[in-house]
Amino acid sequence: MQVAGSMVEDWRAFATSVSIADATLSDDAIVVQWSDARSSPYHFVWLRDNCACNQCVHALTREQVFEIADMPDDLVAIDVSIDDTGAMQVQWSDGHRSVYTPGWLRAHAYDDASRAERHGGNTRKIWDASGGSTLAVFDWRDVMRDERALHAWLVALRDTGLTLVHGVPTQPGSVADIALRISFIRESNFGVLFDVKSKAVPDSNAYTSINLPPHTDLPTRELQPGLQFLHCLVNDAPGGDNVFVDGFALADALRTHWPDDFATLTSVPFEFWNKSASSDYRCSAPVIALDGRGEVSEVRHANFLRGPIDATAQTMPAVYRAYRRFLGLARDARFHVQRRLAAGEMWAFDNRRILHARTAFDPRGGARHLQGCYVDRDELLSRIRILERSL
Amino acid sequence: MQVAGSMVEDWRAFATSVSIADATLSDDAIVVQWSDARSSPYHFVWLRDNCACNQCVHALTREQVFEIADMPDDLVAIDVSIDDTGAMQVQWSDGHRSVYTPGWLRAHAYDDASRAERHGGNTRKIWDASGGSTLAVFDWRDVMRDERALHAWLVALRDTGLTLVHGVPTQPGSVADIALRISFIRESNFGVLFDVKSKAVPDSNAYTSINLPPHTDLPTRELQPGLQFLHCLVNDAPGGDNVFVDGFALADALRTHWPDDFATLTSVPFEFWNKSASSDYRCSAPVIALDGRGEVSEVRHANFLRGPIDATAQTMPAVYRAYRRFLGLARDARFHVQRRLAAGEMWAFDNRRILHARTAFDPRGGARHLQGCYVDRDELLSRIRILERSL
Repeated sequence: MQVAGSMVEDWRAFATSVSIADATLSDDAIVVQWSDARSSPYHFVWLRDNCACNQCVHALTREQVFEIADMPDDLVAIDVSIDDTGAMQVQWSDGHRSVYTPGWLRAHAYDDASRAERHGGNTRKIWDASGGSTLAVFDWRDVMRDERALHAWLVALRDTGLTLVHGVPTQPGSVADIALRISFIRESNFGVLFDVKSKAVPDSNAYTSINLPPHTDLPTRELQPGLQFLHCLVNDAPGGDNVFVDGFALADALRTHWPDDFATLTSVPFEFWNKSASSDYRCSAPVIALDGRGEVSEVRHANFLRGPIDATAQTMPAVYRAYRRFLGLARDARFHVQRRLAAGEMWAFDNRRILHARTAFDPRGGARHLQGCYVDRDELLSRIRILERSL
Repeated sequence: MQVAGSMVEDWRAFATSVSIADATLSDDAIVVQWSDARSSPYHFVWLRDNCACNQCVHALTREQVFEIADMPDDLVAIDVSIDDTGAMQVQWSDGHRSVYTPGWLRAHAYDDASRAERHGGNTRKIWDASGGSTLAVFDWRDVMRDERALHAWLVALRDTGLTLVHGVPTQPGSVADIALRISFIRESNFGVLFDVKSKAVPDSNAYTSINLPPHTDLPTRELQPGLQFLHCLVNDAPGGDNVFVDGFALADALRTHWPDDFATLTSVPFEFWNKSASSDYRCSAPVIALDGRGEVSEVRHANFLRGPIDATAQTMPAVYRAYRRFLGLARDARFHVQRRLAAGEMWAFDNRRILHARTAFDPRGGARHLQGCYVDRDELLSRIRILERSL
């Protein structure tokens, strides 16, 4: 099945409007001069590692079979040229040959300008109480049958973290049908799907009728579920409004106004423990997580799922000052989007960013039944990338 | 259902051999003097947060309903005493009363000595090629019906990361039965269970018959699967040995002999990308992860699931030097445990620590069929804790 000389770059295409003006050899790298005057060095070892010929990459799986540990220590490029198609041809000192298209080279260039371009910014939209008026709303039928509508919904989920879907059939299990438009469901100790209604013997405050303060689900797990879906089958009991808070907005407010508290909540691990007869999950992690660039990437918070704070005696007062500040912000109505779900509506939100809360309801006043499930962030991002290959 | 005055500490018991000799009030804390002369401060805010009375904690779910944001800013303890049972009784300035048993207080004390005791050391056993002679082997029937055998197996999995189970029925699906002794299975894009045999149109090098170099599964996911199970249904094809490497041993060797390379592999993110027509997972993370105490907590590595390294031009040569060193160590036989699985045998290993490899096999020489699945580390640790409540 392998075609001699063919290239197995990737499943993606790499269009580019720039071309290679020149490519020159240095001691340990090839330096490409682009038509827009950018200059990109590519080290020999990096180029050899990324050879996409069908000896180096499996033609069917497109996975690498060559390992850079097998590169001779003294390997150098002895010739570089630009062929008729604009691709860069490299002749190696051990006889191997490699070809790199300009689109692929440009997309993976690691000169400072190219890296800044690739890593700069994000598409995130932070919101407060005014987010209620710009809430992204989608229609079940569109999302179920149209790839463009699906893509629009998933991008909103990624960027704003909170969306509403209406027109969802009120049959039990419908929440799974729409989650499966993204990918498989992440199971938990509460099941593949979980039913939110008050239970006689509840194993979580979620399954009582009391007020539930703003929280993320399953902070007791090393990886909190990425997306949460809450589908309303019936909502006849008085009360039981949903309240949402953009946890990234709380983190921004802390960072701006109380930087010491922000530093505490991003560095001191809190203890998250579930309390149950049949499971004993524990996770020790800061309330606010930062990514490698120092940007807020996650909020982890459920007051009712904490163990005793295990900080040093010296820092304990500062830890509580920061935590009480955070709790106070999460209660502040200027960050709240509040709305009562009607039968056939479904929330979909980023559970690692958006805190959700529920006001108390009166189970004697009527039935209230929500069904929910989880899907991880990896699945959301993969689905968006796959959709974008063809849209 | 709530009993006035009852305490809802936890599902666990907190036995202790020490008692409270004295408890005194300071400005913002109660200082406990223990019978073994240890001294532990407990800040008012910490104690109030951990009040376990049935107003503060839901009697059925054992989850907290009180929130420390509701503590009056000027709250102080106005009296502390030790009652007839040895418990510490606290009278708060707002009229609330709290009771803390000595076992619970001691278990959660945060003086320096108590924290050092709690955080010191781990039960981890690092191994090299000699690990083959001490491989922990378990019997399917024992593990399936006996809680003590199950516990012994899970502790070995946690501490050595590699175990063999024999006597597993060779019916398809048996791997799920034993995984479910721990908890539910973690699904992936390859399914709830995956079948490892060579396929005509493979979507992973794992599903070819070629040599698979040492790797962890799904490094392209933010959370790599914690446990992997590989159950042999039939193994009549020549070749196809399994090779295991303790990734923590590689990390230790790097840290000892090539500290610069260790620093590189624990800090520079590598790109892990799957290559598929239907999924596009990506994760950017270092090959070796450290926990908050600087201990190695995870290895992430599959050469065939990497994207181009995206480091600065200045660091690229050092990144490849470190990576080639790591690849070389992973190939070194002094770290290898090699064994061919027979029908009815099953590997269970920590996929975030143990690299696994497969030698090439000849599919024309006979059938080879393994079935596998994943369970996360959270589930393993929770199951061990639950078993230890009653064993």
